[in-house]
Amino acid sequence: MKTVASLLIAATALSPLAAQRPQQRTDLPAPAKVEASVAKLRDAALKDEVAYDIVEGLTTEVGQRLAGTEAEARARAWSVVKLKALGFKNVRIETYDMPVWVRGTETAEVISPFRQKLQLTALGNSGATPAGGLTAEIAYFPTFADLQAAPAGSLKGKIAFVSNAMVATQDGSSYGQFGAARFTGPNVAAQKGAAAIVVRSIGSDHGRGPHAGLTNFADGVTPIPAAALATADADNLSRMVARGKPVRLKLVLSPRQTGVHQSGNVVAEVPGSDPKAGIVLVGGHLDSWDLGTGAIDDASGVAITAAAAKRLLDGPRPRRTIRVVWFGSEEVGGFGGRAYLAAHRDERHVLAAESDFGADRVWRLETNLPDAARPIADRLAIALAPLGIVRGTGTSHGGADIEPVLGTGVAGVDLDQSGQRYFDYHHTPEDTLDRVDPAQLAQNVAAWTAMLAIVANAPEDIGPVSPK
Amino acid sequence: MKTVASLLIAATALSPLAAQRPQQRTDLPAPAKVEASVAKLRDAALKDEVAYDIVEGLTTEVGQRLAGTEAEARARAWSVVKLKALGFKNVRIETYDMPVWVRGTETAEVISPFRQKLQLTALGNSGATPAGGLTAEIAYFPTFADLQAAPAGSLKGKIAFVSNAMVATQDGSSYGQFGAARFTGPNVAAQKGAAAIVVRSIGSDHGRGPHAGLTNFADGVTPIPAAALATADADNLSRMVARGKPVRLKLVLSPRQTGVHQSGNVVAEVPGSDPKAGIVLVGGHLDSWDLGTGAIDDASGVAITAAAAKRLLDGPRPRRTIRVVWFGSEEVGGFGGRAYLAAHRDERHVLAAESDFGADRVWRLETNLPDAARPIADRLAIALAPLGIVRGTGTSHGGADIEPVLGTGVAGVDLDQSGQRYFDYHHTPEDTLDRVDPAQLAQNVAAWTAMLAIVANAPEDIGPVSPK
Repeated sequence: MKTVASLLIAATALSPLAAQRPQQRTDLPAPAKVEASVAKLRDAALKDEVAYDIVEGLTTEVGQRLAGTEAEARARAWSVVKLKALGFKNVRIETYDMPVWVRGTETAEVISPFRQKLQLTALGNSGATPAGGLTAEIAYFPTFADLQAAPAGSLKGKIAFVSNAMVATQDGSSYGQFGAARFTGPNVAAQKGAAAIVVRSIGSDHGRGPHAGLTNFADGVTPIPAAALATADADNLSRMVARGKPVRLKLVLSPRQTGVHQSGNVVAEVPGSDPKAGIVLVGGHLDSWDLGTGAIDDASGVAITAAAAKRLLDGPRPRRTIRVVWFGSEEVGGFGGRAYLAAHRDERHVLAAESDFGADRVWRLETNLPDAARPIADRLAIALAPLGIVRGTGTSHGGADIEPVLGTGVAGVDLDQSGQRYFDYHHTPEDTLDRVDPAQLAQNVAAWTAMLAIVANAPEDIGPVSPK
Repeated sequence: MKTVASLLIAATALSPLAAQRPQQRTDLPAPAKVEASVAKLRDAALKDEVAYDIVEGLTTEVGQRLAGTEAEARARAWSVVKLKALGFKNVRIETYDMPVWVRGTETAEVISPFRQKLQLTALGNSGATPAGGLTAEIAYFPTFADLQAAPAGSLKGKIAFVSNAMVATQDGSSYGQFGAARFTGPNVAAQKGAAAIVVRSIGSDHGRGPHAGLTNFADGVTPIPAAALATADADNLSRMVARGKPVRLKLVLSPRQTGVHQSGNVVAEVPGSDPKAGIVLVGGHLDSWDLGTGAIDDASGVAITAAAAKRLLDGPRPRRTIRVVWFGSEEVGGFGGRAYLAAHRDERHVLAAESDFGADRVWRLETNLPDAARPIADRLAIALAPLGIVRGTGTSHGGADIEPVLGTGVAGVDLDQSGQRYFDYHHTPEDTLDRVDPAQLAQNVAAWTAMLAIVANAPEDIGPVSPK
């Protein structure tokens, strides 16, 4: 591929709109010179095969890796071998302890008026039904707001059913809105006396594979059985409800808390030449939900960030150390991110970024940089534009793994991936290798390579920011 | 919608190629006059809602309906109520007995070199593993031909794995070629001494829902455990095999033959005015595999044929009786079709057609008519062309349900549906209502309505043919 970045820069310079650009853009420090070296790295990364090899390996040789289980431990061992083989320095596992919840039997059957089995999966932290199951009438709520509006005590002995259907958005923002039914619906239902709750999977598919995911009960609230119905099954149940007769559902769920077990983060480094310039922290999470093989969530994220760092590793030593962290136990509550901060609070992190939104194309750049480092954002925008990445108008927010670090005032960069397809597969049995498009994955690696090349070598000091 | 058929006919008449048309086309009996009445019925059917209502009802109020089980009996009862409500005459259930196989537990796990659970489902007629499971090394065969070529006795104690990947074709012809791994692979593996066999699901998807389906063992061959891996799981297993180390698999399958039980066909009629003109037999099958809700296979087929017949029922009495049969137990060996022939062998059937290839658009017309009735085929082609249906160059072949009737020399018509999407969902948990596109379903109803209007009222005698 040609380095079209220079063409873009030339066009910008000639633009009659140039005079209208905001102040910081006139400060560009000879961008063409900077971009020349970055563009070469970036364009070579469009042919990256390292990231796909990592995803293929993790999904084939390890598979699901639920946090705190022996499968996650196997994934850590696998990762150390892989990262050392790639040539990373200081490769190590940093362990910590965490409580572990595991699913058991999970079946659902409509008893009346229309006898049918439904597919569902227990939500993380769900309580269990009696061993013989729980049979009760459904209390139907089209949306989470309807559940919230139910009078106290009105759900006593019933199984709440919230059917809201998530739609996909490019920026993933619909997850928060529709996801409330899962995140806090079970807690609300429990507080109103429900015997159990089922929610339509928080997903944009029309399939039979339910979407797992975490839920949380407030202190003092006893967890009730809580599960996500596959979207097709929830829609079927909604149609039954629409017939107007009482619907009785039998649930058998036997998840359990198994106590405290070991989890861990896997750390690898590209050493920098200037220890005082600080650390650039990147990564994704190694653990996955247990229904699929965690290909898009988040083998892709660990693969993208490591593959990009590998490209810096193989070139001239960068100014800043790039630390790649494959975090443990993100899905079940972000234990890895907090453990990382606890272990590394005294080090100087200057920037953090994570990849945890699948394997589809990066479409937007957002940053949260101190004013003195704003030229870095300008250079990033110019370097990423040829990959079809727009400069966002907001601020970067990071994600669960780097949130603790960002919370200490560390600058951030988001390379936002498209969410149009992500929630079709996220947390489902369908999160498998075949959902990963190698070309889109390589575009991610190219974006991350360009970002790291710019950030790790930036001559500007990158100081603290107000956390977002 | 306008009746564009007349425009098409006018264009044909003006074509300089008209003189080159085959002999029978010059015999067209004033097609424009015939088409005028048919076109009105056909175009009205493009707004059909009866078919979707049937599919929605069967999938919501009954769900899966495995042949010979109480679920299939509930489906028959549901069907009688529905067909009577639609106004059909002589609605009745015709029962027969059949052997019934049901699945039990079904799990699979790679034990080494990479411990992972795989999703699979037992094939109809599969044997069972010991209760504690069967663990054995895999003998890998990329294709069915490779399995066939294995030396006698070479599979002793092993689990055969055939990984051939089906591709979708519009005419569905790939099912036969790739399906051999399922249809007869287990029998071949058993004869060569295999302890069990797993095949990549015969499907064109990339998912986790395995494709169920029938297999058959020859007389004297003891059924071995035989299952279909989900396509994604089979691909994962293939990647493990490609690593070059022996792969050990543990299977737990507990299907069983439950003895002889009752099944049945549901029959409904649009009485004709001329008893001597014979019966036009149409239908699909009411039973389904048990993993999904049988929306495309074959609630759609029974719905399409009944909805089309209903349009004739609501108009002037047709010359010939249209008999709609919702056959039982097609999936498990075509018991319904044979029972139908045994019960109705003495009646004069003049034409039979079935709908059993999903809910997507009809794209091709094929016929098998006696020479004296060839003008009917010409009129069908003209009436169906505006729906985007081409006239095939072959011969109709019917399907499993009407095969026994066709075998007695009855004429046939095929309205071939597109197979591009069918094998993504066929026999899987994903065969649910949301796979049915109402617009495509209505196009089917329009095609069947036009076909029935022409065939049931044709003035020509429709005599016997050579079975195809």
